[in-house]
Amino acid sequence: MNLVNNVYLEGAKLVMIDRRRIPREIVPVIADNYEDVARAIEDMVVQGAGDIAITAGFGLYLAALELEATEGVLNIEKMENAAARLRVTRPTGYHLAALLDRIMERLKEGDRPVSEEILKFLNSVLARQREISQDTGRHGETLLESGDTILTHCFAGSGLLYMLQYAKENGKDIKVICTETRPYLQGARLTAWSVSQLGLDTTLITDNMAAHFMSRGVINKVFTAADRIAMDGTVANKVGTLQLAISAKYYNIPFYILGYGGPDRRTLKGDDIPIEERDPKEVLEFRGIPISGSDVHAFYPAFDLTPADLITGVITRTGVDLRKNTG
Amino acid sequence: MNLVNNVYLEGAKLVMIDRRRIPREIVPVIADNYEDVARAIEDMVVQGAGDIAITAGFGLYLAALELEATEGVLNIEKMENAAARLRVTRPTGYHLAALLDRIMERLKEGDRPVSEEILKFLNSVLARQREISQDTGRHGETLLESGDTILTHCFAGSGLLYMLQYAKENGKDIKVICTETRPYLQGARLTAWSVSQLGLDTTLITDNMAAHFMSRGVINKVFTAADRIAMDGTVANKVGTLQLAISAKYYNIPFYILGYGGPDRRTLKGDDIPIEERDPKEVLEFRGIPISGSDVHAFYPAFDLTPADLITGVITRTGVDLRKNTG
Repeated sequence: MNLVNNVYLEGAKLVMIDRRRIPREIVPVIADNYEDVARAIEDMVVQGAGDIAITAGFGLYLAALELEATEGVLNIEKMENAAARLRVTRPTGYHLAALLDRIMERLKEGDRPVSEEILKFLNSVLARQREISQDTGRHGETLLESGDTILTHCFAGSGLLYMLQYAKENGKDIKVICTETRPYLQGARLTAWSVSQLGLDTTLITDNMAAHFMSRGVINKVFTAADRIAMDGTVANKVGTLQLAISAKYYNIPFYILGYGGPDRRTLKGDDIPIEERDPKEVLEFRGIPISGSDVHAFYPAFDLTPADLITGVITRTGVDLRKNTG
Repeated sequence: MNLVNNVYLEGAKLVMIDRRRIPREIVPVIADNYEDVARAIEDMVVQGAGDIAITAGFGLYLAALELEATEGVLNIEKMENAAARLRVTRPTGYHLAALLDRIMERLKEGDRPVSEEILKFLNSVLARQREISQDTGRHGETLLESGDTILTHCFAGSGLLYMLQYAKENGKDIKVICTETRPYLQGARLTAWSVSQLGLDTTLITDNMAAHFMSRGVINKVFTAADRIAMDGTVANKVGTLQLAISAKYYNIPFYILGYGGPDRRTLKGDDIPIEERDPKEVLEFRGIPISGSDVHAFYPAFDLTPADLITGVITRTGVDLRKNTG
């Protein structure tokens, strides 16, 4: 399985395999303090809600290590500052803030863990994440029929890869079409590459081609992940998910969300989810080369919100939750 | 006005300003025979249905020049071969084949023009194209209200620029959002650049962001061109047009086609329009740099078909034809 263990500790340093350069180059980015970890998250060295959360957790661990080395104890205020810094790196996803909160709650409750306990906790989260991904993949697999061609967007996490691997093990012939997912091309670089490594027939398309292939009857099902699911069923995911869902609805193609741990109980409505606005330069340039005129502005919302009634079902570690309001 | 006169004769040579490199570089591609012209069209040195047609016409003119120089007369069979070669360069658009047919019909009718007459004819077509673009722009302008933010896809031809220029002259404040239009980035390179040169507020987005901005109420109207309109109202245009139209319908945003000369009487149904499949390599690479894994395939349909019921109105040289079946 690819794209697993891309973030790991080497002693007191965090190694992050740079997701922006996979699959052409395997380049480690190394951080020995939480500020460098925060910057790496902002710069998209890591990708995917679960990995981002774990990386931020490791950032907090590095902060704890440093405080132990310099002050002997964990200064709660300084730990709060580190957590706040790590929390603002990517505002849309749910897992990052949730994981940092769980560590900080333990600190505040007086049951103050030393860095080693934070590490133990992170390792248990990692093991749990893998378990959730495998369970989600197992439930997702039940939705696949031999002969299906599925469309996916951005990188939907290792649950997608487990789902496809289990389908293959069960003798199902599944083809996968991946949107390239501009501007960061996660679909091209991460998803298409890792799906092809599983030995599946994998096709890359640009983001504007999805409806064309739906109109031709080529696509049977759509699967994306969710960076956050609100209690009203709204899904925040990589920008582009919304128009895929609208097009899928138009062509009566089932649209499934790999929801892993399920909705965020603290987010009641879609409108409560902040949409991260990234640097417009990332749209105006491709690998540092300007692609438009110098008087042209750009917008870069990293996510969009897909309303519940466009979603056929949400796949979590506990099963498939089919929405009532879709056909 | 930009992007006008990008294809012109210099003696017996055709100069084509390379559209793939605008606006960063002004690089002429020069052809002195029809085969080189055909290759330039295939390689997308020229872009836009009208320009492609004129360029092919110049290709036929170069073929006539050569025959006159070598054989003294226009061998009809050799002219047919040249026309056939030029016709297959881009199969989806209507104008290219139509223009070549008009030249060849004159040849066959015995009223055999010498090369100079072909040239005279092409110049009259050019003048007529400009007139049609201006008329189309003038009618389109009546649909714009001050304060509008319009979305456009790919490069919708000089009619779009005339429309925006007339709106500006009439004191209307119009903002323009352009999809970058992968894989060739015509929206980023041609449209966003030339619209910004008109002095309008111009914003570039990636192709997957359109529905997000529609959902936020940012976009009031959508305008695209058509490479061909069938008699049943189906519009063939740059791939991505279909999903913009589906999303616009979902959000009740008017979707207009800059239709210039109007539908092609010889094409009864959308299904009769061949969709050009281009080299998948153009999707798998960005400026020669591979963006995915080596086992990944790709598709590159250059166009898609938008059914009539997703289109609010078609703007031609004669006026605005509002479709009855849309809200």
